[in-house]
Amino acid sequence: MKLLDGSITAPKGFLAQGVNAEIKSKNKKDVGVIYSACPATAAGVFTQNKVRAACVDISREHLRNNQAQAIVVNSGNANACTGSRGWNDALKMAAVTAEALNIKENDVLIASTGVIGGFLPMERIESGIKAAAEGLSITGAANLAAAIMTTDLQSKEIAVEFDIQGHSVRIGATAKGSGMIHPNMATMLGFITTDAFISASCLQAALKASVDVSYNMVSIDRDTSTNDAVMILANGKAGNPVIDDVNSDGMKKFQEALDYVNVALSRMIARDGEGATHLLEVKVENAADIQTAGMIARTVASSNLVKTAIFGNDANWGRVLCAAGYSGADFLPDNVDVFMGEVQVAKDGCSFDFSEEEVKPFLEAETVLITIDLKSGNKSAIAWGCDLTYDYIKINADYRT
Amino acid sequence: MKLLDGSITAPKGFLAQGVNAEIKSKNKKDVGVIYSACPATAAGVFTQNKVRAACVDISREHLRNNQAQAIVVNSGNANACTGSRGWNDALKMAAVTAEALNIKENDVLIASTGVIGGFLPMERIESGIKAAAEGLSITGAANLAAAIMTTDLQSKEIAVEFDIQGHSVRIGATAKGSGMIHPNMATMLGFITTDAFISASCLQAALKASVDVSYNMVSIDRDTSTNDAVMILANGKAGNPVIDDVNSDGMKKFQEALDYVNVALSRMIARDGEGATHLLEVKVENAADIQTAGMIARTVASSNLVKTAIFGNDANWGRVLCAAGYSGADFLPDNVDVFMGEVQVAKDGCSFDFSEEEVKPFLEAETVLITIDLKSGNKSAIAWGCDLTYDYIKINADYRT
Repeated sequence: MKLLDGSITAPKGFLAQGVNAEIKSKNKKDVGVIYSACPATAAGVFTQNKVRAACVDISREHLRNNQAQAIVVNSGNANACTGSRGWNDALKMAAVTAEALNIKENDVLIASTGVIGGFLPMERIESGIKAAAEGLSITGAANLAAAIMTTDLQSKEIAVEFDIQGHSVRIGATAKGSGMIHPNMATMLGFITTDAFISASCLQAALKASVDVSYNMVSIDRDTSTNDAVMILANGKAGNPVIDDVNSDGMKKFQEALDYVNVALSRMIARDGEGATHLLEVKVENAADIQTAGMIARTVASSNLVKTAIFGNDANWGRVLCAAGYSGADFLPDNVDVFMGEVQVAKDGCSFDFSEEEVKPFLEAETVLITIDLKSGNKSAIAWGCDLTYDYIKINADYRT
Repeated sequence: MKLLDGSITAPKGFLAQGVNAEIKSKNKKDVGVIYSACPATAAGVFTQNKVRAACVDISREHLRNNQAQAIVVNSGNANACTGSRGWNDALKMAAVTAEALNIKENDVLIASTGVIGGFLPMERIESGIKAAAEGLSITGAANLAAAIMTTDLQSKEIAVEFDIQGHSVRIGATAKGSGMIHPNMATMLGFITTDAFISASCLQAALKASVDVSYNMVSIDRDTSTNDAVMILANGKAGNPVIDDVNSDGMKKFQEALDYVNVALSRMIARDGEGATHLLEVKVENAADIQTAGMIARTVASSNLVKTAIFGNDANWGRVLCAAGYSGADFLPDNVDVFMGEVQVAKDGCSFDFSEEEVKPFLEAETVLITIDLKSGNKSAIAWGCDLTYDYIKINADYRT
C-alpha cells in the first residue's frame, strides 16, 4: 500500500470543489460538492442520536438503492432542530446539486455541520452549490476539505493506493471533526471515495467494520452530535475484478486500506480536538474479548480527569484505573498493569515505584500513549482522544454567537 | 420540618471531631471521627466502580450486621489501588478508632478520599485518629466537615428536625465532593446521623431511595470515583415509636426529611463543583416514565458542551436537545420544549424566536435552570451539575503533585 498526495479526487473519476457562500463568514469556504463521473455504489454510517438533522435521514433514504453520484455539504450551520423548514431546505440542497450536475436528486447525499437550531441561508447556499458544481476539479479536493471545517484548525485529507489482482485501486478521504466528538459514531463528517469495483453489501460491511475501529474509537468530549455521517462512494473505475465476497482476498485488501485511511483520519481528528495540545492514544492489551478492550480504551480516552492530567503532563495513573473501573467492562483490577509511553506506572492494579523523570518525556510528547495490560486474554483495542485544556473551554463557552 | 444550625451532631447522642494529621499539608484538617453514644442501626450506599478502595469493601463488610457506632475518615489520600498494604492500612484505621473509643472494630466504618495510588502515612493517621477521638464534641462537627474536604471550597453541612408521632426527630449530615463526581453513585462522601428509631431494612431502603433522587442526580465531570460512600447511623435516641414498615406514616416523614437533607447537600456539591461559577439545575418534565426523565436530566447536566455554554452565558439550546438525543432515553424529539429560566428557547424540538435580552438574566444567575418539557406523560426528574470552566482545567491539570 502506498500513501499518495491528495484525497478524495485521487481515485479515478472523482472531482470536488469548495466555495465560500457566506454562511457564517465571508472568509471561510463553507459549501462543497463531491462528484463521481458515473453513479457509484454507496454506503453510509450515521449518528445514533435520537435528535437528527434532516440531512441524515434524507441521505439514509437516498442510500436505500445503494447508489449515489454526488455529495453536497455545508459547514457553519447544522440544519438540525429546524423542523419541516429544515427538511425542505435539505431536500432543496439535493435538488439544486442534482440540477447543476444533471444527475438524479436521489443520487445526491447531503451533509451539514455547525450550530444546531438555525435555518440555512438558502439563497446563498444555492449560489454556493452552483459555484462549487461549476468549479469541480481534481485540485478542488483541498477546497472541499476546507469547506467542511468548523472549529478544526487543520484540514484532514488522505489517499492511498493498493493492488487488487494486478489492478491499482485507490481510496481517498477527507473528514472534519473537532468538538462534539464521541464514539457512536464519532461525531464528525467523513467522505470517502474509491475507484474500487465492489458490491454494495461488501462496501457497507467494509465501512461499518472500519468505522468501528476508527471513528467510533475517537472521543473529544463525549458529546455525540446530531449530524454525524461517514459516506463512501465506489465508482468501479479501477477496473479490478469485482469484490463481492466478504471473505475474499480482494475484500481483505480493501478493508485493510480502508481501515488505514479511517484510522489515519481518526488520529487527525483527535489531535485536532478543540483546544488540544496532545493526541491521546489509549491501548488496551490482553483483554478477554474485544468488547472489554474497546469499552475500557474508550472510557479512559474520554475521561475529563485523565484528559486534564494529560494537559498537565501528570502521570496520574490512578485516574486511568478509576476510569477503567467505571467503564462498565468486566475485568480483574488486580491484574492490571499501566504504562505511560514506555514506562510502567502501575503493576497488578497497584502503585509501582516509577521515576517521574523517566516518564516525563513521554508525557511531554505530542502523542501520549497509555497502555493498559489486562493480562486476561489476547484481545486488544485502541482509542484516541486529546487533552482537555483551557482552549476547549474558550472555544465552547460562546460558540453560538 | 425545621431547618437547624449544625449538622451531624445535631441529632441526640452524636459527637464528632476533625484534626490535622499532615497527610497532605500542615494547614488543613484531614482526619475525623463521628461517634454515636450507643451502637446505631447503620446503612450505606457505595461506589459501583470495579476499582474500589479497601475502605469501601471493608465498610460494606462491617455493615453486614446493620450496626455501627463510629465512622473514621481521612482526606488527602484515597488509599485506592494500594493492594494488600492498603487493605491492612484501612483495617488499622478501624482498629485504632475502635481502641480509642473502646468499641468493636466491626462497628467502625471507614472512608478515605483524595489522590488514588499512594500509601497512607499511617503513623500520622493513627495519631490523628487518637486526637480526634479524644476531642469528640458537639461543636467538633464543623471540624469533621472541614476534615473531609479535598478540592471543595465550602464545607457542606445541614440538619433538620421533624416530628414523628409527637417525638422530635433529627437528621444531620455532612458531605464532600467537588471533582470526580458522577451519578452511580455521585462520587463523594456523605455522612448522615439521625436519632430516629428505625429498623435496619427501613433505614437501608430510605437511604437507597434518597440517594437515587439526590447524589445520583449530580454530575460534575462524569468520572465515578473509587471511594464513593454515603453512610447513615440511626441511634434511636429520639425515642419515637420504631419505624419498621416502609409504608408507614413515620417512614414517609423520615424519607421526606432524609430526601430534603440529601438534595440540599447534592445542590451544595454541584455548586461547589471544581471551578464552577454556576449551579446547573436540569428539570425534565412530563416524561412517560421516571427513567426517561432521569436519563435525560443527567445526560444534559453532564454534557461538556452544555456546561461550557452555561459558563459562557450562552443560550445554546441546540446542545441541550443534542444531549437529550444521545442520553439513550426514548422520546419524541418533535414534542420537546426547552426553557432557560422562565424563557422558552425551543418549541416542538425546533428553533423558537426568543429574546436573547430576556433570557440573559436567567443565564447570569447563580443557579441556571434548564427545563425540558417532553409533553409525553407526567413524570419528572431533576439533575444537578455545574458549568465547565478554566478553573476546572487548572485544578485538574496537575492535581497529583
